[in-house]
Amino acid sequence: MAGPFTLGEIVSRLGGRVVGDAGLLIRQVGSLEHAGPGQISFLSNSKHGAELAATRAAAVILAPENEKLTALPRILAEAPYAYFAKVSQLFNPAVAQASGVHPSAVVANSAKLGKNVSIGAGCVIGDGVTIGDDSCLYPRVVIYPNCSIGKRAILHAGVVIGADGFGIAPEKGRWVKIPQIGGVRIGDDVEIGANTTIDRGALDDTVIEEGVKLDNQIQVGHNVRIGAHTAIAACTGIAGSADIGRHCTIGGAAMIHGHIKIADHVQVSAGTLITRSLLTPGTYTGIYPFDEHEAWKRGAARLRRLAKGKKDG
Amino acid sequence: MAGPFTLGEIVSRLGGRVVGDAGLLIRQVGSLEHAGPGQISFLSNSKHGAELAATRAAAVILAPENEKLTALPRILAEAPYAYFAKVSQLFNPAVAQASGVHPSAVVANSAKLGKNVSIGAGCVIGDGVTIGDDSCLYPRVVIYPNCSIGKRAILHAGVVIGADGFGIAPEKGRWVKIPQIGGVRIGDDVEIGANTTIDRGALDDTVIEEGVKLDNQIQVGHNVRIGAHTAIAACTGIAGSADIGRHCTIGGAAMIHGHIKIADHVQVSAGTLITRSLLTPGTYTGIYPFDEHEAWKRGAARLRRLAKGKKDG
Amino acid sequence: MAGPFTLGEIVSRLGGRVVGDAGLLIRQVGSLEHAGPGQISFLSNSKHGAELAATRAAAVILAPENEKLTALPRILAEAPYAYFAKVSQLFNPAVAQASGVHPSAVVANSAKLGKNVSIGAGCVIGDGVTIGDDSCLYPRVVIYPNCSIGKRAILHAGVVIGADGFGIAPEKGRWVKIPQIGGVRIGDDVEIGANTTIDRGALDDTVIEEGVKLDNQIQVGHNVRIGAHTAIAACTGIAGSADIGRHCTIGGAAMIHGHIKIADHVQVSAGTLITRSLLTPGTYTGIYPFDEHEAWKRGAARLRRLAKGKKDG
Repeated sequence: MAGPFTLGEIVSRLGGRVVGDAGLLIRQVGSLEHAGPGQISFLSNSKHGAELAATRAAAVILAPENEKLTALPRILAEAPYAYFAKVSQLFNPAVAQASGVHPSAVVANSAKLGKNVSIGAGCVIGDGVTIGDDSCLYPRVVIYPNCSIGKRAILHAGVVIGADGFGIAPEKGRWVKIPQIGGVRIGDDVEIGANTTIDRGALDDTVIEEGVKLDNQIQVGHNVRIGAHTAIAACTGIAGSADIGRHCTIGGAAMIHGHIKIADHVQVSAGTLITRSLLTPGTYTGIYPFDEHEAWKRGAARLRRLAKGKKDG
Repeated sequence: MAGPFTLGEIVSRLGGRVVGDAGLLIRQVGSLEHAGPGQISFLSNSKHGAELAATRAAAVILAPENEKLTALPRILAEAPYAYFAKVSQLFNPAVAQASGVHPSAVVANSAKLGKNVSIGAGCVIGDGVTIGDDSCLYPRVVIYPNCSIGKRAILHAGVVIGADGFGIAPEKGRWVKIPQIGGVRIGDDVEIGANTTIDRGALDDTVIEEGVKLDNQIQVGHNVRIGAHTAIAACTGIAGSADIGRHCTIGGAAMIHGHIKIADHVQVSAGTLITRSLLTPGTYTGIYPFDEHEAWKRGAARLRRLAKGKKDG
Repeated sequence: MAGPFTLGEIVSRLGGRVVGDAGLLIRQVGSLEHAGPGQISFLSNSKHGAELAATRAAAVILAPENEKLTALPRILAEAPYAYFAKVSQLFNPAVAQASGVHPSAVVANSAKLGKNVSIGAGCVIGDGVTIGDDSCLYPRVVIYPNCSIGKRAILHAGVVIGADGFGIAPEKGRWVKIPQIGGVRIGDDVEIGANTTIDRGALDDTVIEEGVKLDNQIQVGHNVRIGAHTAIAACTGIAGSADIGRHCTIGGAAMIHGHIKIADHVQVSAGTLITRSLLTPGTYTGIYPFDEHEAWKRGAARLRRLAKGKKDG
């Protein structure tokens, strides 16, 4: 933890404008619900007015148009949630591991590590791997040979980069393995969640562009491309050779078929299975609504009859 | 393996009542289908009467009301399946690892381990972690700093506790990371399956209460609470800040949206996506029924027309 | 990398027939789209005629009936994709790790390793495990005690074999653990993708037969049987005691209920939840079609009314 900082010191570092006591000393961030004395919180949406009214936070970050919603000392900023994120970074700079290679990690001699890289306990870094400056690999990350990771990457525990893609060809009832000779190329400022897997390419590389954020337990198949600044929530699967645009957001447990193209600025809802290319920006959803079990059973039976073209009896 | 025990010795330890030869010697448990001489099986449901009639087990555990369904030596118990579980524990006490810290594990000096804890090969235990008495971590579990695990925990291989939650804020087309400064608190008697991940909280803690049972490859987002004695099957994803009650059961591959509340004693069916709070106990389901592929294709096309308000042609 | 080989040398090793210059020297394989001088590609489907026309590959593998589709030097083979796989193996023989046990791996004294086995960094091999000849375990694979792996297995990083199945019995609002005393038996020529988990059996064994191919992040519950030469794509979950036939293909993110039987030669589409036994070969699908979000919302509301038996208004 760093700090404390006054509201005035915060805006001198991060911009924005103080309304109220600029000398107020802040020690930590907190949620509207749980923040207490010495803590600063934020309001990202005026719907949370009731929580704002009840908060015991010492100060609040909010948008200029919401200035009048509170009498607390406050910082006005255009993107209060992003501003809050930066304030939290200010107070909590040292969440990452110490830099250097943990003695229990296994790093190939031919791997090239940038400056100020942190390799956690039990990591395994293969031949010919490159890792950019200021990257942090938490414990037990595995990177297969000949993959590259950009600068300022954060790879969480259990991540596997560069395992073979699922390439098999049928012959007389058996499967013949197709060597996976491509690699994985990951850009700068990428974060990858715990136990996520990104397969190496069959012939060409699998590519994750700069600024991509992947949550936990995501599977990225061989030869996928994920465009810059796309964010994907947990448990999503992306089949081989899918080409996903820039600035997309994909909800949790979504599934993307292989060999399809998704345009920039597409949003896919959680739990949605995308089976064909999406060439127009927008939000796409395909969730079968749940119901109380007996009602679902009757409804599903009726829909099955309707789907078969029978009249509803 | 321990034993053998006579039926009489079993009921003197675990309760229940013997019908038939109390001196019959039992050496192991088995399924109705595969048990042989010296083995005891169980009948949990009178629907399995045919298997009971055909079994070659030496003895059977069943409910008092089913006493007459077999002439075999038997133990009558109110909850035959739970009773069988305890009998199996009697015969198979030593499935867990030896206690102590494996020399290849990496345990921070500031971590506090209780009595009789077992830390498997390749585990990584961060600063300030506490682990309660009699807990067993199988190989390659990672616990990030400042998380706590209760007593008698069982954490299977590949579990990751306390990785950063997926907290990012948009700003001008890029993502700003929100430091995840909460921890994970796990109660007593919790079991967590292989490769399951539980993220640390953004500001407050992620909480898993006592007696929770999690299967493999489950993802628990930041600031989730899972109430006591809830059981969740494999491949389920729980998004951030979901608040799940006590004594719930959640089927495999279910998905729970973030920021919703699920009451105590709710049952969610496998493969169901829960998109809003469930404040009433009961069973909830939302599965799109499968069909033979061509029939599904015709049916899906017809349902799409109906969903658009067109008459069925 | 091995080679180069002439087209003539390739067919003398792998069969097929050369049309054109049999002395043409090939150095590597490539896709129709990206292959260049010295590279051989393949045409598996005459639909890709346009890519074939545009390719800069030096030679192509294709089916005898497609011989006239190109004027390039070519190899005619009955199964061009499988033939291509073998050609790629010829040029890329050494993708696997070196044989031997990495010094950081932890192998129980009672484990039995076959000839030419490769055990990667950080693997943990339990008591009584057997691993067949020529098998390769990439880094950080965990095999619990008393499981067996066949010959020529490929297990990718993060795989966990033999963790406890999810066996719990309810008693007075709490869960009693059922010891999982079966093992896992895996046949010859099985490949298992990164972070996939296969649980040990409750009483009897979990069985993966020869030639099965499993992609990443698959969960296989206790007492499942997967028949020979079945291939399963990523993120699929298979619940306990499911019995899956031989020569099946199961798409990504499918979910198979427990205690059901799937015949040989069944194909399950990606994202489909199979809730009952499939005793007839064929393809089965159950995907709820996605739509643009607002259209989906209206359609889902209308379907809910129809499912409740209300007239469409």
